[in-house]
Amino acid sequence: MRIIINRNADTPVYLQIKNQVRDMIFSGILPADTLLPPERSLAKELEVNRSTVIKAYQELKADSLVDSHVGKGTVVLSHTVKKTALPDSYINPLPWYQFFTDSINAGTDNIIGDIMAMTGDSGVISFAGGIPASNLYPVEILKTIQTELFTTANRELFLHSPVEGYYPLRESISHLLRQRQIAASPKDVVVLSGSQQGLDFAARIFIRTGDTVLVEEPTFFGAIQIFRSAGARVIGVPIDQEGMRTDVLEALLIRHKPKFIYTLPTFQNPSGVSMSLERRYQLLNLAYQYQLPILEDDPYGELYYDRPPYPPLKALDRHGYVIYLSTFSKTLFLGLRVGWVSGPPQVLAKFAHLKQLTDLHVNTPAQFLLDEFIRRGYYEKHITLVRQEYSARRDAMLKALEKYKVPGTKWDKPEGGYYIWCRLPDNIIRHKLVANAGNRGVVFLPGETFYPDGTQGDTRIRLNYTFTNQEQIQTGIKYLMQAVRETTSLDDNQESERNIKPLV
Amino acid sequence: MRIIINRNADTPVYLQIKNQVRDMIFSGILPADTLLPPERSLAKELEVNRSTVIKAYQELKADSLVDSHVGKGTVVLSHTVKKTALPDSYINPLPWYQFFTDSINAGTDNIIGDIMAMTGDSGVISFAGGIPASNLYPVEILKTIQTELFTTANRELFLHSPVEGYYPLRESISHLLRQRQIAASPKDVVVLSGSQQGLDFAARIFIRTGDTVLVEEPTFFGAIQIFRSAGARVIGVPIDQEGMRTDVLEALLIRHKPKFIYTLPTFQNPSGVSMSLERRYQLLNLAYQYQLPILEDDPYGELYYDRPPYPPLKALDRHGYVIYLSTFSKTLFLGLRVGWVSGPPQVLAKFAHLKQLTDLHVNTPAQFLLDEFIRRGYYEKHITLVRQEYSARRDAMLKALEKYKVPGTKWDKPEGGYYIWCRLPDNIIRHKLVANAGNRGVVFLPGETFYPDGTQGDTRIRLNYTFTNQEQIQTGIKYLMQAVRETTSLDDNQESERNIKPLV
Repeated sequence: MRIIINRNADTPVYLQIKNQVRDMIFSGILPADTLLPPERSLAKELEVNRSTVIKAYQELKADSLVDSHVGKGTVVLSHTVKKTALPDSYINPLPWYQFFTDSINAGTDNIIGDIMAMTGDSGVISFAGGIPASNLYPVEILKTIQTELFTTANRELFLHSPVEGYYPLRESISHLLRQRQIAASPKDVVVLSGSQQGLDFAARIFIRTGDTVLVEEPTFFGAIQIFRSAGARVIGVPIDQEGMRTDVLEALLIRHKPKFIYTLPTFQNPSGVSMSLERRYQLLNLAYQYQLPILEDDPYGELYYDRPPYPPLKALDRHGYVIYLSTFSKTLFLGLRVGWVSGPPQVLAKFAHLKQLTDLHVNTPAQFLLDEFIRRGYYEKHITLVRQEYSARRDAMLKALEKYKVPGTKWDKPEGGYYIWCRLPDNIIRHKLVANAGNRGVVFLPGETFYPDGTQGDTRIRLNYTFTNQEQIQTGIKYLMQAVRETTSLDDNQESERNIKPLV
Repeated sequence: MRIIINRNADTPVYLQIKNQVRDMIFSGILPADTLLPPERSLAKELEVNRSTVIKAYQELKADSLVDSHVGKGTVVLSHTVKKTALPDSYINPLPWYQFFTDSINAGTDNIIGDIMAMTGDSGVISFAGGIPASNLYPVEILKTIQTELFTTANRELFLHSPVEGYYPLRESISHLLRQRQIAASPKDVVVLSGSQQGLDFAARIFIRTGDTVLVEEPTFFGAIQIFRSAGARVIGVPIDQEGMRTDVLEALLIRHKPKFIYTLPTFQNPSGVSMSLERRYQLLNLAYQYQLPILEDDPYGELYYDRPPYPPLKALDRHGYVIYLSTFSKTLFLGLRVGWVSGPPQVLAKFAHLKQLTDLHVNTPAQFLLDEFIRRGYYEKHITLVRQEYSARRDAMLKALEKYKVPGTKWDKPEGGYYIWCRLPDNIIRHKLVANAGNRGVVFLPGETFYPDGTQGDTRIRLNYTFTNQEQIQTGIKYLMQAVRETTSLDDNQESERNIKPLV
């Protein structure tokens, strides 16, 4: 009878002995009527105290796995389990991949996860993520509110919330929506764990395998991933300076009969482009004409740096065709994971159904905290603050891009949002650029990421300017452009390998 | 030109005018070259200040929707959008149900949502939910920890977390698991938004439409809902006093070739039954023999009131066949929405992938708060406290059931967990019982809810004893048993309608 004692384990020794004997009995290694070694000799063999073995045997007896008779010793009792027991050598590890669904086996792409990991590294200057500036977090205000809530809300703070969300927060969100010219009552709002969850729910509500979804090209890669994993064919509609090309859209509508159109009309990710007012109406009219739902994603609309943007499609839609997603993740911080959806009642009912099914409701304290933050007018103040800071950072990046400009690079000045969508020289060697910039401690997102077919965009990169401060922006762009210059022709590049100055 | 002014709206009047004219232009009601009424006359017509109209016209001009020439007045400019514009009368509301997937159209069942709503009503005595006693929430301790975290963690508190969870919390959970005799390193743990999300992810990872899943019968209705909505055939395995009938299981394994087995081995929901040690090994051996994953759900294991339960299947599994779900929702509170999964690395990678895809990560402050709560030893103290309180409430309910016993009712004493699974007289008229008890302000969950085929269990009800205090339990059971007595034969029942004493 082979027993291994691990003296560093948390499990007490007598329990280790008991468990291993128990396993041997149930796995058939110790059949019924087996005589267990006398306590004294087992104790000697294992170099433990005799009382330890006695305790182990007592435990086994309590589970009626063994019985002991004076003189006869401790005997294993019979267990029906023996019948189905297999020797370990016959037991194979599960071939898990055979059990996974196809889309799960396909989906290995953890871009967002990787970005968040990268972004954490100290010394790395990250233009890759879509993360707010942490130095602007209103920590002191939140602390005050939170402390008060412990008194005023007390236990309510940890109770379950309604599936659709904490009602006062829905009121506050309805108030925010009115400022975006969207008329939505609190009942027209369902609180979600970030707008990301809204994309996932929309996919689960609408997409049957083989359905087509139209998206801007380029667009948010998370949306492409989610729609694909739900079994959709994702087709891109090209954009220009006025946003989605509605002329091309109509042709695609007719050809592909899509399930819905996904769009980021304002300060689009990654292009930074905003859809013109005319295009917004054209898009709506096409939706009306071809009877198509529009899924509008608006995480950046409040972050304008020059003039206020055109109203969201939801504000212009007079016939309930638009499902509107938004979030606090880009204006405040990611960590609370709170976003929302607003749309027609029949659709909201389905969002609520999925919320109940998948995770019941959004974290209650986060909902209380945000509600108070908005109610007390701090949200509006905060938005004004981040607008100033982010436009300054945008300008700093534009200035740096000019200063270190490499021939062949191009970009437009975004009027709001988070990103500069930078064009690279045509003769760039992209895989080398990532490595080259990485060596200098600068990360960014490659353009292909944002294209459904992944073949285009290889001369584009997305640069985020909200997460890094102006000094980091200055340094980061300098190193990035050095990397670009060195990666535009192979010779320069070999030349360069010698004089790379790593940041860290 | 018909414009309606709403003087109570948040939108300023000039913007209301501008928006309505804009809509008329884009929807083709005001074609190009239309002459807008002079500011003065429009102001008169709308009973607004002339400057208001001027401001509105200026806005329209800024959007280059109109142009104005001295003498000529304000003229609508041409817009390509007119081409696709439709008169409102031609625009139909979307037939949304045609766009929803079949499972979404089917899934209207919001039991959990309804329970949470009911449970909120004051005056109602609810034995329906699965909610912890709010008077035990360690609010003061949490307040202290939270306040400290604002200083120590500061901004970290609102930053994004890793997809797999905040590492220190994964360490704390790994520590809790060792106490359950499960050896899992922090890396073997992925933090989720409640174990509910774990069920949803498992469904998405494993279930192809038409797959079969085996569950205990009765079992947690949420699991039935989720597996069904993923397209699974859900087949029940009967249970007895030792838990899942492994003899029946083997026959079902052979017949249905299920994708996995879902089980609540300890203090099962709703039956309160715990699987015997022998059955646990039999189940594992069957899984090994037939190469089947086991999804183990263990929300109640720590809540034992007499003797510690047998180890989880995960602790007995030596070959990585068990995926283990647990949560803080039953031991602490629901509101934070934090649970976790532990399993083989290949499977955890898929859970992480879905987490990243669907909602990025669990609310960061909640993860910090729970980690500190566990690290400082408060969690263990808290568990001891709730064990005492819940066993007292269980005994109170058992006592009340004895006191007001109706012939034909039966129940077993649960050794842990949340529920008493009460048998009703065979001649009960169930739909009348719900109404009858409801009139007295007592709610519970009907037995059918817990059966995959929904036909059985109509003489059972699930009674939760953790949410209500002993006094409410006493009163609630009294009224409930009155309702039962009156609903066992039609005559008694008509008789009773007169002397119903509503609680509220």
